[in-house]
Amino acid sequence: MTIAITKYPAKENLAKVAKNLGLDEGILFLKGDIIKERHDTDVELEFRQESNFYYITGYNEPNAHVMYDLKTRKLTLIVYAMPENNIAWLGAPLTESELLAQYDVDEIRSSSDLVKVLNGSNVSTLHTLRKEDVPAGVHLTIDTTRLADALVNARMYKSAYEIAHMRKINHISSNAHIECMKRAKHCKNETELEAIFRYETWRFGARFQAYTPIVAAGSAAATLHYTRNNRPFAKDRGQLCLLDCGAELDCYASDITRTIPLSGKFEGDARVLYETVLDMTNQCLAAVKPGVEWEDIHRLSLRVGAEGLQRAGVLKQEYSVEEMTRHHMGLDVHDVGGYPAGVERLQEPGIRYLRMRRPLEVGFVVTVEPGIYFTEFLLSEAKKKPELAKYIDWDMLESRFQPLGGVRIEDCVVVTETGHDNLTTVPKEIAEIEALMA
Amino acid sequence: MTIAITKYPAKENLAKVAKNLGLDEGILFLKGDIIKERHDTDVELEFRQESNFYYITGYNEPNAHVMYDLKTRKLTLIVYAMPENNIAWLGAPLTESELLAQYDVDEIRSSSDLVKVLNGSNVSTLHTLRKEDVPAGVHLTIDTTRLADALVNARMYKSAYEIAHMRKINHISSNAHIECMKRAKHCKNETELEAIFRYETWRFGARFQAYTPIVAAGSAAATLHYTRNNRPFAKDRGQLCLLDCGAELDCYASDITRTIPLSGKFEGDARVLYETVLDMTNQCLAAVKPGVEWEDIHRLSLRVGAEGLQRAGVLKQEYSVEEMTRHHMGLDVHDVGGYPAGVERLQEPGIRYLRMRRPLEVGFVVTVEPGIYFTEFLLSEAKKKPELAKYIDWDMLESRFQPLGGVRIEDCVVVTETGHDNLTTVPKEIAEIEALMA
Repeated sequence: MTIAITKYPAKENLAKVAKNLGLDEGILFLKGDIIKERHDTDVELEFRQESNFYYITGYNEPNAHVMYDLKTRKLTLIVYAMPENNIAWLGAPLTESELLAQYDVDEIRSSSDLVKVLNGSNVSTLHTLRKEDVPAGVHLTIDTTRLADALVNARMYKSAYEIAHMRKINHISSNAHIECMKRAKHCKNETELEAIFRYETWRFGARFQAYTPIVAAGSAAATLHYTRNNRPFAKDRGQLCLLDCGAELDCYASDITRTIPLSGKFEGDARVLYETVLDMTNQCLAAVKPGVEWEDIHRLSLRVGAEGLQRAGVLKQEYSVEEMTRHHMGLDVHDVGGYPAGVERLQEPGIRYLRMRRPLEVGFVVTVEPGIYFTEFLLSEAKKKPELAKYIDWDMLESRFQPLGGVRIEDCVVVTETGHDNLTTVPKEIAEIEALMA
Repeated sequence: MTIAITKYPAKENLAKVAKNLGLDEGILFLKGDIIKERHDTDVELEFRQESNFYYITGYNEPNAHVMYDLKTRKLTLIVYAMPENNIAWLGAPLTESELLAQYDVDEIRSSSDLVKVLNGSNVSTLHTLRKEDVPAGVHLTIDTTRLADALVNARMYKSAYEIAHMRKINHISSNAHIECMKRAKHCKNETELEAIFRYETWRFGARFQAYTPIVAAGSAAATLHYTRNNRPFAKDRGQLCLLDCGAELDCYASDITRTIPLSGKFEGDARVLYETVLDMTNQCLAAVKPGVEWEDIHRLSLRVGAEGLQRAGVLKQEYSVEEMTRHHMGLDVHDVGGYPAGVERLQEPGIRYLRMRRPLEVGFVVTVEPGIYFTEFLLSEAKKKPELAKYIDWDMLESRFQPLGGVRIEDCVVVTETGHDNLTTVPKEIAEIEALMA
């Protein structure tokens, strides 16, 4: 898949931010990220631009600042004034005309003029995220109360450019998941699978993972943020392996989970469990459209999951699904239930402040990620509570399902007028996965 | 290659540190690294233990502290008291008896008792690296003047365990370089070669690179810290490609550079240039032994490099090598000469404070990395200075050598009683590289 890479549309994004600010004048100011070192050493960490800065500049280099005049609508990128004796080490920086050709900004200034540039604006107030980002000597009034919300409320609604770019990185990550499926039978441990995922994203230019990958075989899948990824696979290849891995490209994330059978075939209880989570996924995805509340999709996921576990016999037949799932309502969507029913997480990648409970709107990018986990610590707590313990067939659960760890399936979708557009292109149906693994 | 992994010998290391401190009593205290997040988000960065902490504990988990009583010689590891509701997310922590079995420490305490543990010691002075690492409420006198030197002067001399471990990661990285050589002909750009190196180290458990890899084809090699690694290879495959890549394993680094011909054959000027740097490397390696001064190896490198460039005709025949190289003396060994003569860097991985100019001693691990670079910025400066410009055949340099960028060859060696032990196992002779690339 190829998309034409054009200038990152910084001013289109900025127009949304400025509209949210709703002010006639003032300066919007952000500091980009700097090069950091590992502990007290000279080992430099790899540079990753701060996302808000990237959003209004598209500029992916360290030690920069950006200033936008809300009245004149002039966007000024203030780039690092590299000392001459760094050039042999780091290479010559781009010239002013190269920068103007490459970035969607109106003016280039040097960081050596930063204070002068800021003080030279004909306004009284500077809007920024953190007071400490403003250099000493700046005379403007600093307002940190408005910009964060204006940025979040712009970033939530993805533009056509952003969706095309997220489709690209989701496609790269999807193909990496497919490679993991194809090569899993040759892997002896979690580390080798993780290495394949990283390789198959890195070689297409994805220099960061959007989050630390989770590659969890067997019971490790029950630890929701398992990232050790260092255990050998069981010799009998009877385990499921959960892969929650997504790379990022130019500060845009992907977030994909697949759970695969290390034997190449979904069999027995593992198949029953997987079918249940797949059913949760497909029903939840079908429910995604503008106006839907997160909690309603969460409830749907719980109900479908509980029905599946009841059919399997882990949840007892004599109680209603409504009664059993009622115990989970009111939990935060980031949280997990107190016993092995489904948990679903919907989250816009990269934005911490997004409230999870607002209804879906066109242009949101969300992940739908139902899962069922058999978490030892939580199960042992539930077993002690008669009002929860009574629902569960403990013999079956402990002997047959708990060793499976858990299953999660996660796709990344854009909410559209009529429903959703799935950015994740890696198969999830049983026959498809088995064919890839054959 | 396999080595038996035993308990990390924390107390053996600590004994060296304590001896360097030379005190009869007192507490040695270090804070381990914590989990950090990316900017103002909930994306966690991958955890990498602080090296000094690892050196006296072998403990590779976040939020820990360590305390050593210089009088009683009791080593106490203070581990993070994980809140119960984190267990479903992160998994259960090791128990006290598991920790004692796995680590070379005498006692395990919980971080919830940190202040109590420190105040409970029967001494007056606590030695640590940074005042801010000591929690509020501790009554001991804090001394930050002694511990850093004591640690550096212990870490400089590698133990048998450390050498075996560094041999292992150098072997992994060497094999990854070999894979890059074998697969280079199928790569279209620098990114793909970098991805292969990372894959071939990651899959053996090396979760960090010791430094950002440099994969620099053609003129990019002249930028000493080029890390963009994102340029396509020239269609004619006539470029050299410099790979300065080394992974780390459990906080121990490797550091290896090879320069390979993308055609698979060293030909013409590229061969002449490579032969010269190889000659520098082999002569410098032969000179490594206890008592030798860095500067003498540096001078040797410059002389051999200048002789090679004079034979090639880039440096004019009518001046003596002694005269030409004299202009570089007195430069810092981390620096690069003002025109394209050799520069050599010797550095103990991971230790910033190591003085470069002390004579070599048994147990030092150093890199020998001569190189010749044609750096546009530096050459244009040299061309303006008659006293430098006169030595150089500018026509030949600019038309034939400058496009080659540069060559570096770097091995990692242990200084031994009789000379050195080379930890780097990837070939560097022309015939060997060409055979691997065929």
